[in-house]
Amino acid sequence: MNTFGYIFRVTTFGESHGKAVGCIIDGCPAGLKLDEEFIANEMKRRRPGGVYASKRKEEDVVEILSGIFNGTTLGTPIAMLIRNVDIDSKAYEDIKTVFRPGHADFTYQAKFGVYDYRGGGRASGRETTARVAAGAVAKQILKEFGIRVIGYAKEIAGIRCEVEDYEKAFEIAEKNALRMPDEEAEKLAEEKVEEAIREGDSLGGIVEVVAKNVPAGLGEPVFGKLDAYLAFAVMSIPAVKGVEIGRGFEVSKLKGSENNDEIFIKNGRVAFRTNNAGGVLGGISNGEDIVIRAAIKPTPSISKEQRSVDWSKMEEVKIRVKGRHDPCIVPRAVPVVEAMVSMVLVDCMMLQGIIPRRL
Amino acid sequence: MNTFGYIFRVTTFGESHGKAVGCIIDGCPAGLKLDEEFIANEMKRRRPGGVYASKRKEEDVVEILSGIFNGTTLGTPIAMLIRNVDIDSKAYEDIKTVFRPGHADFTYQAKFGVYDYRGGGRASGRETTARVAAGAVAKQILKEFGIRVIGYAKEIAGIRCEVEDYEKAFEIAEKNALRMPDEEAEKLAEEKVEEAIREGDSLGGIVEVVAKNVPAGLGEPVFGKLDAYLAFAVMSIPAVKGVEIGRGFEVSKLKGSENNDEIFIKNGRVAFRTNNAGGVLGGISNGEDIVIRAAIKPTPSISKEQRSVDWSKMEEVKIRVKGRHDPCIVPRAVPVVEAMVSMVLVDCMMLQGIIPRRL
Amino acid sequence: MNTFGYIFRVTTFGESHGKAVGCIIDGCPAGLKLDEEFIANEMKRRRPGGVYASKRKEEDVVEILSGIFNGTTLGTPIAMLIRNVDIDSKAYEDIKTVFRPGHADFTYQAKFGVYDYRGGGRASGRETTARVAAGAVAKQILKEFGIRVIGYAKEIAGIRCEVEDYEKAFEIAEKNALRMPDEEAEKLAEEKVEEAIREGDSLGGIVEVVAKNVPAGLGEPVFGKLDAYLAFAVMSIPAVKGVEIGRGFEVSKLKGSENNDEIFIKNGRVAFRTNNAGGVLGGISNGEDIVIRAAIKPTPSISKEQRSVDWSKMEEVKIRVKGRHDPCIVPRAVPVVEAMVSMVLVDCMMLQGIIPRRL
Amino acid sequence: MNTFGYIFRVTTFGESHGKAVGCIIDGCPAGLKLDEEFIANEMKRRRPGGVYASKRKEEDVVEILSGIFNGTTLGTPIAMLIRNVDIDSKAYEDIKTVFRPGHADFTYQAKFGVYDYRGGGRASGRETTARVAAGAVAKQILKEFGIRVIGYAKEIAGIRCEVEDYEKAFEIAEKNALRMPDEEAEKLAEEKVEEAIREGDSLGGIVEVVAKNVPAGLGEPVFGKLDAYLAFAVMSIPAVKGVEIGRGFEVSKLKGSENNDEIFIKNGRVAFRTNNAGGVLGGISNGEDIVIRAAIKPTPSISKEQRSVDWSKMEEVKIRVKGRHDPCIVPRAVPVVEAMVSMVLVDCMMLQGIIPRRL
Repeated sequence: MNTFGYIFRVTTFGESHGKAVGCIIDGCPAGLKLDEEFIANEMKRRRPGGVYASKRKEEDVVEILSGIFNGTTLGTPIAMLIRNVDIDSKAYEDIKTVFRPGHADFTYQAKFGVYDYRGGGRASGRETTARVAAGAVAKQILKEFGIRVIGYAKEIAGIRCEVEDYEKAFEIAEKNALRMPDEEAEKLAEEKVEEAIREGDSLGGIVEVVAKNVPAGLGEPVFGKLDAYLAFAVMSIPAVKGVEIGRGFEVSKLKGSENNDEIFIKNGRVAFRTNNAGGVLGGISNGEDIVIRAAIKPTPSISKEQRSVDWSKMEEVKIRVKGRHDPCIVPRAVPVVEAMVSMVLVDCMMLQGIIPRRL
Repeated sequence: MNTFGYIFRVTTFGESHGKAVGCIIDGCPAGLKLDEEFIANEMKRRRPGGVYASKRKEEDVVEILSGIFNGTTLGTPIAMLIRNVDIDSKAYEDIKTVFRPGHADFTYQAKFGVYDYRGGGRASGRETTARVAAGAVAKQILKEFGIRVIGYAKEIAGIRCEVEDYEKAFEIAEKNALRMPDEEAEKLAEEKVEEAIREGDSLGGIVEVVAKNVPAGLGEPVFGKLDAYLAFAVMSIPAVKGVEIGRGFEVSKLKGSENNDEIFIKNGRVAFRTNNAGGVLGGISNGEDIVIRAAIKPTPSISKEQRSVDWSKMEEVKIRVKGRHDPCIVPRAVPVVEAMVSMVLVDCMMLQGIIPRRL
Repeated sequence: MNTFGYIFRVTTFGESHGKAVGCIIDGCPAGLKLDEEFIANEMKRRRPGGVYASKRKEEDVVEILSGIFNGTTLGTPIAMLIRNVDIDSKAYEDIKTVFRPGHADFTYQAKFGVYDYRGGGRASGRETTARVAAGAVAKQILKEFGIRVIGYAKEIAGIRCEVEDYEKAFEIAEKNALRMPDEEAEKLAEEKVEEAIREGDSLGGIVEVVAKNVPAGLGEPVFGKLDAYLAFAVMSIPAVKGVEIGRGFEVSKLKGSENNDEIFIKNGRVAFRTNNAGGVLGGISNGEDIVIRAAIKPTPSISKEQRSVDWSKMEEVKIRVKGRHDPCIVPRAVPVVEAMVSMVLVDCMMLQGIIPRRL
Repeated sequence: MNTFGYIFRVTTFGESHGKAVGCIIDGCPAGLKLDEEFIANEMKRRRPGGVYASKRKEEDVVEILSGIFNGTTLGTPIAMLIRNVDIDSKAYEDIKTVFRPGHADFTYQAKFGVYDYRGGGRASGRETTARVAAGAVAKQILKEFGIRVIGYAKEIAGIRCEVEDYEKAFEIAEKNALRMPDEEAEKLAEEKVEEAIREGDSLGGIVEVVAKNVPAGLGEPVFGKLDAYLAFAVMSIPAVKGVEIGRGFEVSKLKGSENNDEIFIKNGRVAFRTNNAGGVLGGISNGEDIVIRAAIKPTPSISKEQRSVDWSKMEEVKIRVKGRHDPCIVPRAVPVVEAMVSMVLVDCMMLQGIIPRRL
């Protein structure tokens, strides 16, 4: 269950304060010239250490251990290793027997009878490092087929950005600290974030990711639907509590005549006048942009006092979670959602035979 | 990809106007006394023919072909067969080369080069008949462990019901045509539905499903998370465009201090004061109610005129979709969401060893 | 676990004396004109009722319930139903609490706590009916790619046939009762079988199956090797106790210089002078004939007296297994091994993208 | 396809002359005190450098990167890394465009269009290092349940050892260079090996592995049969060309009355007088010793001259494969077969719920 995918399969490992995190990519097509700089750049996009991010210092250098020969993929497993460098577990020693509210401490103990209390262990957002590394490979494959997966923070702390041009939105978002597609909105959101920092609190938001130029025909009826697969992929990211495609929850308020996307002929091919469907009909891509949104909960680690339980004595206690938390994880979640969407698309394209086993 | 689940695996088959729909349940624990009446009753809950439902007349009699001996499950595959009886494909003959907007006609053709145009073929909601049959078996297994999965139409056409007591909400909902947990709201919604019928249009809504008494520890990190699995399961249902757990998309507007559920001791066990998490933390159940919502789009089949494409001539045409459509599929979607949630829970409990291979 | 395959997936169901056996084929390419007569003919090859076969009378009519429209596959699940007609469970009533030696009665009870004692239940060779039906579809797909899978009884009761020309061997074998590729050998084997019948005993043998014209490049390193997959497929057939590829167990006695197949150029392509490898190198097909053999144990049902245990009283008893058993199951196992090999090849060719999702 | 297993899942990576080989074990039960010394010892059993083994010098130090906390398994993925140290690719530079007979060079190129010619790349026996590391974890789990998996070289170069007491056979075998259970036979085999070395040739043999104290009830009908799963596991090992269970291919010559194992009561439990079945009936373990044999082909790397093809010029050439090959890989294959059998048993016991998710 630490493996994701059918043909393009990614298996990840690693605890937040363990020796390393990493992954094995199995099923990557042979013959891909792998651009390690691109991978490094994607890692940088997710990396901690930014203005509003965790102060943990991780260069996140990816060592590729296998599957590459003379710069080209062999079709064999690509193992990627990222050493954990800046580990400071002190903040966790004091609260090592207290379940942190909003975290997985209790549920891991309920499941496994044991958990690594240092920095969230396996349940930490650090696990997503490996996803971004794998996603960077997926993106390179997609690039060969003209497909681009881009994202941004659509909403932070209730401040929502309307987006008309996805490419432009991405461009703007990449340049600001909160990765929002509207600079004015971003300034307002920054104020909220700074307020949250002052209060020792945290904020949530919504990530929107768009895949452009996706061919029609991806997705497998009835339990491998593209949208179901995307929902699975995105909901598997820590802190995500909701996923929607196209108009998403708004469809509940629409009439069929409003929601149906009319079909027409464009340059001799079937196309849709609107994209309420978000690029998926009957679980299969329809050739329009895939549009997906994820609701990100506020980081559960807050320094405000909360009530919880010390399981070693089974007594109620008060807890303040110190450590180097992101006051708002939303910007750093963007490349993670992109990574998951990219992996899903590569996998579906391989299942459909559009991406061959060798390029 | 027509198979769902890891240990408790359900494979479905069947086109809307083909000979039959059905499923094979593999991995069902041995030693379960199967209550066929309960299955029949669940079928009835999803069945067409109600006041606001499709007028297709299907008794949906389930013939069990295998896996049962002397009324008890053998642990071998349970094959269930439901013959399609009331097939009337005439309405589809006239439009058999026209892609119906909002339907999967185009995407199936893009994928497979061919599609069964009669009533939506495999992409029809009729496919969910088999899910409900399988879900009825899952529910019986859950019952042995004191778990109950219940649902209702939380919202139809923008009319939303607040719910405090899930059990009571279910009880009320089961008694009205739109399966809403609030009778007054339901009356208002009925008006909307009748208006939609008059206009030849259709309506969407939101289904909420709650699983009560679920043990802590279900779900597999990191790509088999309970919420990811639920999202996958529910998003695989036709017409679902969004899924959320607990507070869902609302979390984007909350602070950590508002969203974190405080932990306390209740009857000597760890419990949570609130349930914003919807019963899942870090992808693993925490012992609280599992609460999940699905956004259901308005039925794409409407008799209002829409523009589309006739692929046989590759020309733009106008289309009115006749046939016996539900003006609002939301009430009939309720048992389908329940079925999917039930299957996920059984599967996770088997993975966790809580449900044994033989009862 | 009643599902076989990755892309071309077959799920079977059914007990020997239940209502029916059957299967769902998922992942079959769309656009295949299905020849139902060919399926019927394959069923006939496996059917009971022959000179030396079980006297159970089953026409094994295959009803196709889904996945076909206007005679062509839709790419959706193909459900196939074969009703059990000639059920006579009387012979099993007397021994219903006695574990039959060589049968799965004890192990099913150990696993599931319950078993269907009538005719072996799920563990009966009758289960293979569904495999042959699915294999008949696989064979039709292979035919589109010029691939043929043929088999025969290489050995019965120690009487072994040397084969030089596989096609010819198949032709001869199809014409005699024991399906042996050498008529004289077959006569000798018939004598052995008649002797076994007189003694109330049974005989084993070896089935050899050859796949001709298989492209190089099939099979997935390292845990999806073609030979591993074939071994899995063939060993899953009831009564098989050994599987070998190419020279098989003989390689243990060879030197590298004897066993290595020298490589040369034939018609501008790489070819092998010998085929000790049986068409597989490093787990991947090399373009030569795939040659696989299965050791078939003598039918465990014998009317000779054997000692066993009555589990209802936990006491030792003597048992004679009546019923309509095959004195030698080897000839009827031939089409089953062919079916499994065919499914493996289709699946590997789909994984490799050689067979597309639509023909 | 570089992943093995359903619940206890092992994913391996690495090329022979790449940076490292290794694996991720997913699904390992939580709460296991991991004995790293035991792992090191298993690595030693497979390690090159022995009297009759490859002279490559690899200490095969296993670095555990995750999944362990305070010496105990967390239930999260255990990543194991083994750096390749003694890499000497010179011998392969001269023949880098020549397909080595008996090797996977041609088939990898046919599949992937590219291959790592250095030491066999992914197809090298070096890949099995990771299997033995994972198997060492599996063995520790089995030990908690009193199960032991042991093996030896049953036959080398036609010299076969009869074995009566498996435990004793293992003990003897562990002490001699060829890992044979009979010292005299081993001396004879040593002579054969030395002769092969002189001739620049290589030898094959048969490995026998026995699992003792396995509970009844393991294995999943009908496509997850224990023997099918074992056959798959063992056939996936490089150089294996045949697999048999219990009496294996001999059953083809037996009568039912000879082959059926009679059932009796032993210490109040059901037991079998003989073990022709090799511990598996109907694909499910019967409580007797699991006995499995693998036919190992002679190492394809020989320094004798062979004919092959240089693909860069598409011309026939003569080749002598230098490098540091094992003249007989059989002894080093023993721990690999043991590892695979151990993983299968752990996986089946987890599927059956006998091994819980946490110890």
